[in-house]
Amino acid sequence: MSLNTFIQSSDELSVHSLSNQPLRLELGQRSYNIHIGRNLLDQTELLAPWVSGRLAVIVTNSTVAPLYAQRLHNTLLAAGGEAVVQVVLPDGEQYKDWQHLQLIFDAMLQANCDRKTVVLALGGGVVGDMAGFAAASFMRGVDFIQIPTTLLSQVDSSVGGKTGINHPLGKNMIGAFYQPRMVLADLSTLDTLPNRELSCGLAEIIKHGAICDVAYLHQTIADISAIFARNEYALYRAVRRSCEIKALVVGQDEKESGIRAILNFGHTFGHAIEVGMGYGAWLHGEAVGCGMLIAAELCQRLGRLSKQEQALLHQAVEAVGLPVQVPALGLERYLSLMALDKKSTGGQIQYVLLNGLGAADVAAVPNAVVAEVLQAMGVT
Amino acid sequence: MSLNTFIQSSDELSVHSLSNQPLRLELGQRSYNIHIGRNLLDQTELLAPWVSGRLAVIVTNSTVAPLYAQRLHNTLLAAGGEAVVQVVLPDGEQYKDWQHLQLIFDAMLQANCDRKTVVLALGGGVVGDMAGFAAASFMRGVDFIQIPTTLLSQVDSSVGGKTGINHPLGKNMIGAFYQPRMVLADLSTLDTLPNRELSCGLAEIIKHGAICDVAYLHQTIADISAIFARNEYALYRAVRRSCEIKALVVGQDEKESGIRAILNFGHTFGHAIEVGMGYGAWLHGEAVGCGMLIAAELCQRLGRLSKQEQALLHQAVEAVGLPVQVPALGLERYLSLMALDKKSTGGQIQYVLLNGLGAADVAAVPNAVVAEVLQAMGVT
Repeated sequence: MSLNTFIQSSDELSVHSLSNQPLRLELGQRSYNIHIGRNLLDQTELLAPWVSGRLAVIVTNSTVAPLYAQRLHNTLLAAGGEAVVQVVLPDGEQYKDWQHLQLIFDAMLQANCDRKTVVLALGGGVVGDMAGFAAASFMRGVDFIQIPTTLLSQVDSSVGGKTGINHPLGKNMIGAFYQPRMVLADLSTLDTLPNRELSCGLAEIIKHGAICDVAYLHQTIADISAIFARNEYALYRAVRRSCEIKALVVGQDEKESGIRAILNFGHTFGHAIEVGMGYGAWLHGEAVGCGMLIAAELCQRLGRLSKQEQALLHQAVEAVGLPVQVPALGLERYLSLMALDKKSTGGQIQYVLLNGLGAADVAAVPNAVVAEVLQAMGVT
Repeated sequence: MSLNTFIQSSDELSVHSLSNQPLRLELGQRSYNIHIGRNLLDQTELLAPWVSGRLAVIVTNSTVAPLYAQRLHNTLLAAGGEAVVQVVLPDGEQYKDWQHLQLIFDAMLQANCDRKTVVLALGGGVVGDMAGFAAASFMRGVDFIQIPTTLLSQVDSSVGGKTGINHPLGKNMIGAFYQPRMVLADLSTLDTLPNRELSCGLAEIIKHGAICDVAYLHQTIADISAIFARNEYALYRAVRRSCEIKALVVGQDEKESGIRAILNFGHTFGHAIEVGMGYGAWLHGEAVGCGMLIAAELCQRLGRLSKQEQALLHQAVEAVGLPVQVPALGLERYLSLMALDKKSTGGQIQYVLLNGLGAADVAAVPNAVVAEVLQAMGVT
């Protein structure tokens, strides 16, 4: 189940392509453009087709609102929006729950929103997931647009239509597959992004390389300092390549009945860390980075990954500033948390496993083997 | 926008067709069968394809559970279900909210349900809407089956994929279009249905006749006493004909961008009554019955319905035991509640209007005209 044959090189990047060539996620009637570039927040012509004559709801959080909400608000009005409503959520994975989703519905009903209303997610993965699920569910579905402002959401969560909220017993357990009408990845918003959040985005970038494009993994390792320096070409290259990979995978398997599952590499372990530590203690990208290292150890023990490949992945995760020490939740707790993950079917836990760097598939692994791996990583 | 030309007569009913010829709702990959007959709850062969080797979750309520849950439970195990979980909700529209939806998620996660789990709605419209939305949202979507046990849900709400919950500010405001895999309308469950609930089902049956099949309306009026006597042919004829109409309309317009809206005849006024009186005070069918009378007065004043036609509709609603006195919520309250209804777009309230009995379309009507109508019906 490798994607290598489907994926073309993005070597021919030019300054021109930096602003003018959107990617397209092909899903029949639900196809949409992914625009990547600087200062897209100000481009009325991109937004006008979706907001002209309509009520627009900006869903954002208390960190992003003071930075970018008014700017987007002005653009929406200039694009012909009838009126703009802002819903500002508290910032953090621990607020990705029903109570806070309800705040979006309350605000939309109080503002007399209707089926023609358009919802815009302005923020990171949590905002995108919540705004998307709100748009999917409000009056059984209204249009929505993703405007990701973190590297993680630009390279991963804003593309592909996974929306939802957490449940105390499991991450993203309640939600919908609901595609946005457009994604605007404004690279200039990364100027204000804390480095800790940049590292989280790099976790998903490393994942994309590891599962289907080893050249991209090497490129990423070479680009790390340029990315942290907010070099626009390095950022563009990463966001573009990751979105290409995501769009190709999702275009083949929107609802994750097959190949899309490889995008969950590191996530079964990562979700256990996030839930086990308490939502918000570890950022999602941190948990995924560490989860990939556990998964790599598993792959190495199963003879699917050489020690050199495992070391390269470890080096990449460490070099981008992600934690590499597996948190001590206890072995039993890990196993029970993972049994609840969505990759579990019929009582068997399914793992995304590498076949060397650059290829991946999904298989069940006996709990005893997983327990050995966790013990080898210091979990007792 | 009349359906008359699409709809064939169902005069050729026979005892044979009573159990063996499912209807089919055609929606491409989401097509499904609607089975209508007695004692379908016991038919393992109908359920086996959907439950064999899987966890099954029965969502029901405290009224229906003691009557039919164990019987369905046994059938599911006999059909090869791996295990059966029962979730029993309190009975009533006032519980169709997030807190009670959450009970379904809690039970499913505690039982280690996964993406292969199948959800079965056993009950009336509230149970079907909630179980359907839970199935749509649990892990972003699992299979679900409608087993309606009220006349209203058998003739209307179980078919077509509308699911959702209420919000304090509006009915069915949060939900999803999510089709079931199968509908089992077991006519024998109507034996235990209170007459008040039977009247509610007749409200939707009258609606189906009024919007697109005047012969069916006359047939229904002729069948009223047979239906209250639980005559199986009269019940079968009504459930079958209403499901045919529903399936044809939904098959043409699943997400209500056009013709499906005619199924909301009487519902804009009806929803205002339900919300205004407090969820559960009036049953949904009661509010729809009364709402149709307000809508008929509106149609008559707009020259779309003769006084004779209006009188026939009034007579039908009264004859099936539904309230015909419009509740005194106050004129302003009616208008503000209706402005929130989903049929509102761009600030204009859209009404389903008859063009004589048997045909309907959708149009905006000035508030002043609606106010006059409400006043003529005794609202001050």
